[in-house]
Amino acid sequence: MDTNTAMDLMWVLIAGSLVFFMQAGFTLVETGFTRSKNTGNIIMKNLMDFCIGSVAFWAVGYSLMYGKSIGGLIGDVSEFSFFDSAADMHSLFFQTVFAATAATIVSGAIAERTKFTTYLIFSLLMTLIIYPISGSWVWNAGGWLAKMGFTDFAGSTVVHAVGGCASLVAAALVGPRIGKYTDGKSNAIPGHNLMIGALGVFILWLGWFGFNPGSQLAISGDNAFAVAKIFITTNLAGAAGALAAMFITWIFYKKPDISMTLNGVLAGLVGVTAGCAAVSPIGALMIGLICGITVVFSIEFIDKKLKIDDPVGAVSVHGVCGALGTILVGVFATDGGLLYGGGFEKLGVQTIGVLAIGAWAMGASFVVLFILKKTIGLRVTKEEEIDGLDIHEHGTNVYND
Amino acid sequence: MDTNTAMDLMWVLIAGSLVFFMQAGFTLVETGFTRSKNTGNIIMKNLMDFCIGSVAFWAVGYSLMYGKSIGGLIGDVSEFSFFDSAADMHSLFFQTVFAATAATIVSGAIAERTKFTTYLIFSLLMTLIIYPISGSWVWNAGGWLAKMGFTDFAGSTVVHAVGGCASLVAAALVGPRIGKYTDGKSNAIPGHNLMIGALGVFILWLGWFGFNPGSQLAISGDNAFAVAKIFITTNLAGAAGALAAMFITWIFYKKPDISMTLNGVLAGLVGVTAGCAAVSPIGALMIGLICGITVVFSIEFIDKKLKIDDPVGAVSVHGVCGALGTILVGVFATDGGLLYGGGFEKLGVQTIGVLAIGAWAMGASFVVLFILKKTIGLRVTKEEEIDGLDIHEHGTNVYND
Amino acid sequence: MDTNTAMDLMWVLIAGSLVFFMQAGFTLVETGFTRSKNTGNIIMKNLMDFCIGSVAFWAVGYSLMYGKSIGGLIGDVSEFSFFDSAADMHSLFFQTVFAATAATIVSGAIAERTKFTTYLIFSLLMTLIIYPISGSWVWNAGGWLAKMGFTDFAGSTVVHAVGGCASLVAAALVGPRIGKYTDGKSNAIPGHNLMIGALGVFILWLGWFGFNPGSQLAISGDNAFAVAKIFITTNLAGAAGALAAMFITWIFYKKPDISMTLNGVLAGLVGVTAGCAAVSPIGALMIGLICGITVVFSIEFIDKKLKIDDPVGAVSVHGVCGALGTILVGVFATDGGLLYGGGFEKLGVQTIGVLAIGAWAMGASFVVLFILKKTIGLRVTKEEEIDGLDIHEHGTNVYND
Repeated sequence: MDTNTAMDLMWVLIAGSLVFFMQAGFTLVETGFTRSKNTGNIIMKNLMDFCIGSVAFWAVGYSLMYGKSIGGLIGDVSEFSFFDSAADMHSLFFQTVFAATAATIVSGAIAERTKFTTYLIFSLLMTLIIYPISGSWVWNAGGWLAKMGFTDFAGSTVVHAVGGCASLVAAALVGPRIGKYTDGKSNAIPGHNLMIGALGVFILWLGWFGFNPGSQLAISGDNAFAVAKIFITTNLAGAAGALAAMFITWIFYKKPDISMTLNGVLAGLVGVTAGCAAVSPIGALMIGLICGITVVFSIEFIDKKLKIDDPVGAVSVHGVCGALGTILVGVFATDGGLLYGGGFEKLGVQTIGVLAIGAWAMGASFVVLFILKKTIGLRVTKEEEIDGLDIHEHGTNVYND
Repeated sequence: MDTNTAMDLMWVLIAGSLVFFMQAGFTLVETGFTRSKNTGNIIMKNLMDFCIGSVAFWAVGYSLMYGKSIGGLIGDVSEFSFFDSAADMHSLFFQTVFAATAATIVSGAIAERTKFTTYLIFSLLMTLIIYPISGSWVWNAGGWLAKMGFTDFAGSTVVHAVGGCASLVAAALVGPRIGKYTDGKSNAIPGHNLMIGALGVFILWLGWFGFNPGSQLAISGDNAFAVAKIFITTNLAGAAGALAAMFITWIFYKKPDISMTLNGVLAGLVGVTAGCAAVSPIGALMIGLICGITVVFSIEFIDKKLKIDDPVGAVSVHGVCGALGTILVGVFATDGGLLYGGGFEKLGVQTIGVLAIGAWAMGASFVVLFILKKTIGLRVTKEEEIDGLDIHEHGTNVYND
Repeated sequence: MDTNTAMDLMWVLIAGSLVFFMQAGFTLVETGFTRSKNTGNIIMKNLMDFCIGSVAFWAVGYSLMYGKSIGGLIGDVSEFSFFDSAADMHSLFFQTVFAATAATIVSGAIAERTKFTTYLIFSLLMTLIIYPISGSWVWNAGGWLAKMGFTDFAGSTVVHAVGGCASLVAAALVGPRIGKYTDGKSNAIPGHNLMIGALGVFILWLGWFGFNPGSQLAISGDNAFAVAKIFITTNLAGAAGALAAMFITWIFYKKPDISMTLNGVLAGLVGVTAGCAAVSPIGALMIGLICGITVVFSIEFIDKKLKIDDPVGAVSVHGVCGALGTILVGVFATDGGLLYGGGFEKLGVQTIGVLAIGAWAMGASFVVLFILKKTIGLRVTKEEEIDGLDIHEHGTNVYND
């Protein structure tokens, strides 16, 4: 292998390691934002969706996503199944940690009341089928959205909105936690440890320096310029998202809110993921600001108006801001964006892609979860939920002494 | 220096940084799995064994391990002592963090009742003498096991089983914690914070992406293919280990157990460390499954039958699965393994290596610990143990408010 | 771009990612060493100073520091403002995370009693003006200290002492926490979670493997040797700092102290930052030992004699050891140091640099904080301080259940 190619592989593997670490970040955010009696269950969900996803994506998912495209709709599943060739193992690793990210997003939205077995099965189907199919539309060279010119560089929609849309369906079908809504009012259920949640956000931010710049899939030659720029756009969007969320809550709640600001970071990062390579630093800043503002209102709307109980704000952060960020590529892309004289064409394609993938993620999730609901059930019993899932599902407490 | 060589150094240094971070992972796992009254002592042990090891391995250990081999048994200690040449500093860094890993494994097995001074001295001797000598047998080109064709790519035995065997001797000599065994029955002593333990496991998994692929010691040219493959084998084995441990406990305990599943991840990772470059993905999956099953029964056996008190399962995870994973190279290696038509020769060499190194690690540890027992003693007083080591050994509490 | 240049960019970006992660380390150390009622405020300070700094340094700071030097005193601010060129984006990223480090150091020194708004404004001015100006003296090729031959390779003074000097002024102006000094006696206010503090120190140590070796700004060719050596000098100094602090407290307090040992690690790392490329491993070990001893006495002196309340020891760790480490380059540099036959010239230049930058950091901080004191005020009310800043400043508790 020549030096440049080896360097590219090295970069993808290092970036993939950072993305892997995001699993720890998601675990910490979800546990921090929920109650201590369910912490062990959340650890197990986030750990096992990665373990299941690693096997499932290797055995089937990668091939379904990246095998020779059949009609632009799915990859040829026979091409790489039970992957055993050295040529693309760096790619398998990188794409595996992405698939696991999509799956793990759902965990937060249905935390504290969902059956463990049900979650494992749903998570398996996410990495086995749901994520790879829509993923193939965009990231398989033969995918129909790829051919249409749809831009989702690192997965605002392919990864995050897919996870977020599945989260919306799942949270709606599972229903709210006991005590969340009484007399038509939404009650806050405070998380047990925001410190651990904040550490999770820092780890996720670090992981995003693998997620976005790693999606260049190369760093040799002029790729290095592109990668460096993506570091800057990613970082500025995360910073702007936090600033926006902080000031919005400062204005509306009278105090700078911690949870919302943490979600603002994630909103900015999710939002810029689609366009990190296509927008300028100032465009990234704008996307971050817009997503940081949006996430606050979206969380309020879903909680208070839609009355869907999403303990960590996964639907807003990953679903809404993922979709929004993808559409905003049509506005801020320096090549083809509305603000740069590109007309509405780019914007149209971006919107079509978001709608199509969102519909797929919601539809497929609905089918899977509806079947699970009618068979093994989605929720733990009332008693189990009140006592906590750790004791009933896993026979242990996480915190002792 | 040419570009390829510089790239190789870069890779080794980055991988070494990830391995360094495993010290944090070990600290979190050990503190999480034990009681809060000893957390400060555990922090100090894990921090100081790395600090002592960094100095000791630089001053003597590296040279004893990698200096020109004398009779295949030890390195020429005069060769690199007080290392001051630029040529191999990347290697010194990488090997230092490996040495510290071997030392720190013992900490967990003797947690909550061992004298701090005793631990420091033992830890010093681990990185100064015990680990480098057996290490030289395998990783020094002139070592007798290296010449025999023994395969331990990244240290299932050289690092983990050495730590695990020393742990077994140490835990047996130090004796169980007060209250662990009453009326011939083993009592569970729950850890105080599994959340922190789970974060530790995620950090260790991340670190393993330095540990195993970094052990290729290069990434230029076709090394990049090898490195990428090791990412996949490492990841699949960790995932399979967790899946196996989860299902085994689900069957035998009726519930998917959190601690055991976390140990299952580590068991799979430890197990594949020897063969990560020699086995196929499917072989890695099998090694992970076997180690994930084994670790559960091994922990039960050591706890309930041998009645040796190992608070974190270090003997089973690192000792048993390290040895087992090394031997399984003789089964699953695609070049020479039993399943690939290689006959029993490879299996025999692997077994000889494991037995020789295990005997050395146990014997040397026994001599050191026996002398320490007869001189300064191994255990804190009963009062100190009951009150907690933090107050008596360090004059402080870790948790306040 | 040629292969070597791409490799250099890659290295700088990876190193910068590790430095970014130090923000998490600082957050954990500061929260762990303080009381739980202020944890949320500390999270917000450490998160937002990075977010503000990322925008401010991109918009103005980088240019003020690295634009064409005007009279050796400041950079031409028009050169890179609102940075939008691909050529140096890797440099912008790397320098941004450095600027944020300087700013965030101050947070710890004034923890638990400072107004959030005041902190945000001060932090903005740090990354916008204070840090870039003195930074330009050393790291801008046209800076007056650069021309004089002042050596501060990775920022013992440029980053750490600037943060530490600002911390001293800020802690003095803000005044001690309620209850810290009664009847002329200093009362210990124990931190609420040393476990989280210890994790922070491990993360900081990891980050330093980006901070120091990354400051080579290249890794191709013989740069790789230099980078590898810096890994070793950095690691040995951190280890020696911990060992020194541990033994000093063992002697003087009769027990090896956890907080001081953790600060010993940081003291050694801060101290070696200036000279990591210029000293030998043995020199690094000496610098680490000296700084590890110094930090203990400095913390005691500032606390008990100066009666300045610095909850995390930021002034001693970053200010005192940063200055000391920079001066010690004049002693231990193998090219020009006193011990290597270099006479007092190097030592003189190092001292001049430290004094000039220290005076600037203190003077500028004083002006800013004095104005803030006379306008919006520095401290929260007595009631807010007693109840905790989380409830009053952010309307929430971090820990629930």
